[in-house]
Amino acid sequence: MKHYAEILTTLRAAKPLVHHITNYVTVNDCANATLAVGASPIMADDTQEAADIAGMASALVLNMGTLNTRTIESMRLAGRAANQAGIPVVLDPVGAGASGLRNETAAMLLCELRISVLRGNLSEIRFLAGLQAQTRGVDVSEQDLEQTGEAAGVARALSAQLGCVVAITGKTDVVASGMRAVRIENGHEMLSRLTGTGCMCSSLIGSFCGASPQALFEATVAALLTMGISGEIAYENAGAAGNGSFRIALHDALSQMDAERLEKGGRIYEA
Amino acid sequence: MKHYAEILTTLRAAKPLVHHITNYVTVNDCANATLAVGASPIMADDTQEAADIAGMASALVLNMGTLNTRTIESMRLAGRAANQAGIPVVLDPVGAGASGLRNETAAMLLCELRISVLRGNLSEIRFLAGLQAQTRGVDVSEQDLEQTGEAAGVARALSAQLGCVVAITGKTDVVASGMRAVRIENGHEMLSRLTGTGCMCSSLIGSFCGASPQALFEATVAALLTMGISGEIAYENAGAAGNGSFRIALHDALSQMDAERLEKGGRIYEA
Amino acid sequence: MKHYAEILTTLRAAKPLVHHITNYVTVNDCANATLAVGASPIMADDTQEAADIAGMASALVLNMGTLNTRTIESMRLAGRAANQAGIPVVLDPVGAGASGLRNETAAMLLCELRISVLRGNLSEIRFLAGLQAQTRGVDVSEQDLEQTGEAAGVARALSAQLGCVVAITGKTDVVASGMRAVRIENGHEMLSRLTGTGCMCSSLIGSFCGASPQALFEATVAALLTMGISGEIAYENAGAAGNGSFRIALHDALSQMDAERLEKGGRIYEA
Repeated sequence: MKHYAEILTTLRAAKPLVHHITNYVTVNDCANATLAVGASPIMADDTQEAADIAGMASALVLNMGTLNTRTIESMRLAGRAANQAGIPVVLDPVGAGASGLRNETAAMLLCELRISVLRGNLSEIRFLAGLQAQTRGVDVSEQDLEQTGEAAGVARALSAQLGCVVAITGKTDVVASGMRAVRIENGHEMLSRLTGTGCMCSSLIGSFCGASPQALFEATVAALLTMGISGEIAYENAGAAGNGSFRIALHDALSQMDAERLEKGGRIYEA
Repeated sequence: MKHYAEILTTLRAAKPLVHHITNYVTVNDCANATLAVGASPIMADDTQEAADIAGMASALVLNMGTLNTRTIESMRLAGRAANQAGIPVVLDPVGAGASGLRNETAAMLLCELRISVLRGNLSEIRFLAGLQAQTRGVDVSEQDLEQTGEAAGVARALSAQLGCVVAITGKTDVVASGMRAVRIENGHEMLSRLTGTGCMCSSLIGSFCGASPQALFEATVAALLTMGISGEIAYENAGAAGNGSFRIALHDALSQMDAERLEKGGRIYEA
Repeated sequence: MKHYAEILTTLRAAKPLVHHITNYVTVNDCANATLAVGASPIMADDTQEAADIAGMASALVLNMGTLNTRTIESMRLAGRAANQAGIPVVLDPVGAGASGLRNETAAMLLCELRISVLRGNLSEIRFLAGLQAQTRGVDVSEQDLEQTGEAAGVARALSAQLGCVVAITGKTDVVASGMRAVRIENGHEMLSRLTGTGCMCSSLIGSFCGASPQALFEATVAALLTMGISGEIAYENAGAAGNGSFRIALHDALSQMDAERLEKGGRIYEA
């Protein structure tokens, strides 16, 4: 656990710039979460500057929440610039499975870019595992996945297939890198009653990976630990009052997360 | 009043998916308000997926807050898909009367789509009543409306003309369906000092109607009762501290609204 | 100081309409800050209505936070309409220096429009001073500026050059109009840990200038005093709890700012 705490300390010292091309629903929470853990957010989605901004950043977060044809092209351009610069690229395939546009965009980004970390909920990641199976002929079929229903298995298989870290967040979070996988038992059910907590996880992953690009698996775990433990603290401090107070307490906890809290609070197990 | 409380209970059980094409100013509040009452928001505004998403939703909310030519076309496509699927369509004509673009868009949407519920403030609804009068030769002229100044009259006339539920929110809310109309005397003046409380009303109407499509009038009333009573609770709990605290307390109250509070707190009268 | 307090009183009585073409990251905070000080925000960024809306407003705020080619043209059109109507135009050149698109847009807006108040952080304003030097052959070279590192000097020089009020916000705020300059020693370091506090300053400047267009310098100072003092009150009331609570307390303080608090709390000095 100490290792994860050190990654947070590294982040707070490094203050990495994290370029986001993201949705307009939760973007403010993403920016404030990024700031809360010590990174610096920049949102820029025009095709004419996406590559410039990615080229000066320490990490890139691509979030498909409110895709449009203009920003899809910006994601491609920023992603290429990020790959060229060698900085981590986090993909949050929001709503994969819900429309042809999202499915095709996710497939295009996974095909054309080197993604460092893929983070979604179980249904999104399941869909992508199936999509890959169809489009690339890999052995993890969608049907199999639904039958097993096992997040760790899905994450492991997709990670091996795509060659990137795969994180599935939910009641239990799972992070896999090839055959290695852990589950994180932190968090609180109220996180699912706010919009944007998944997006914030992706922004935190971008922040942590931006400061520790040589340790993407550990940085991803540290980011999810930070969110999960903050959710627990927030519930304890304000959860009974309702969604609004819980949300504020969550931002409070994120901004006050430190190595000690992370080390004591984390509940990680082999998956 | 018991009837309205049951509609809330129905909503919390049904968890309807509510597709929004809305503005980027208040979209986060709309998403969180939708979640707070038990529905599930999805925001998607590209022409290439608007119809797909509307086709899988239980209700569609079209909010003109930050219109642009791209999203106007998406509204049309999503609206048609919603009409075809038979799900409720809520139109929030933000800023109707303020620009030619908004006026033409509101007229186009009212003409091309079957709107289930139209919700606005008095000046927006007044403008639309006048616009309809001009463009369709109906007997409610804008001048008459300004002379009477009577929200219930405007709502009733426009409802009869358009064949949909019309809700005018303000100090007193009015909901009309044909000749039937009620006024709701809940709420607090501080609601007008926050951005987005009108938009949140439209999202709540979409949520309630999505769960009770066979009872659009009652669902609209239940949605406005929920907002009004939540505003009162929020003021009592935190209003004296200022706008920020009031806003958080409003989200708290929305998330904790239940049948009992709604039944006890509602003040509805024939209008 | 009494003068600045009167400007706040004027604003609260006048309730000016403030048109924003701004970014989708902090727009909600900008709208709520505008409302909190008594003005009325309207966000509209389509080319087909930008001029109409600017023509009915009391001030226009152009914020480059999430520029795109569509909104750049809207900024130009709204700016021209605002100039024609004689209302104040506030430019917030977010990220000037970070990409060619931003640099060219800032240069275009400064060239084609009469800007009333330019507000940015030191690096943005420094960049614009250098840019102007390069593109217009003015005597303030970027290198000189970096050597002096003196915000008041930069602000004064750029103000003289552009013929507008220039405000640089940071630990110390500086406002210059020609050779006249003041520094404001209010605020709190936590303001820099939230996204949007700079954008909110620009919205407050638009609000104050909209109500006092004949006193742009004083209105700009009053706006920054309002933000700075609110930041101090917010820290005192809630800062220890973390970023989320501080943010709410900031909105509370903005909404409760009055002439007395502003008069007592302001720390202004000649610069």
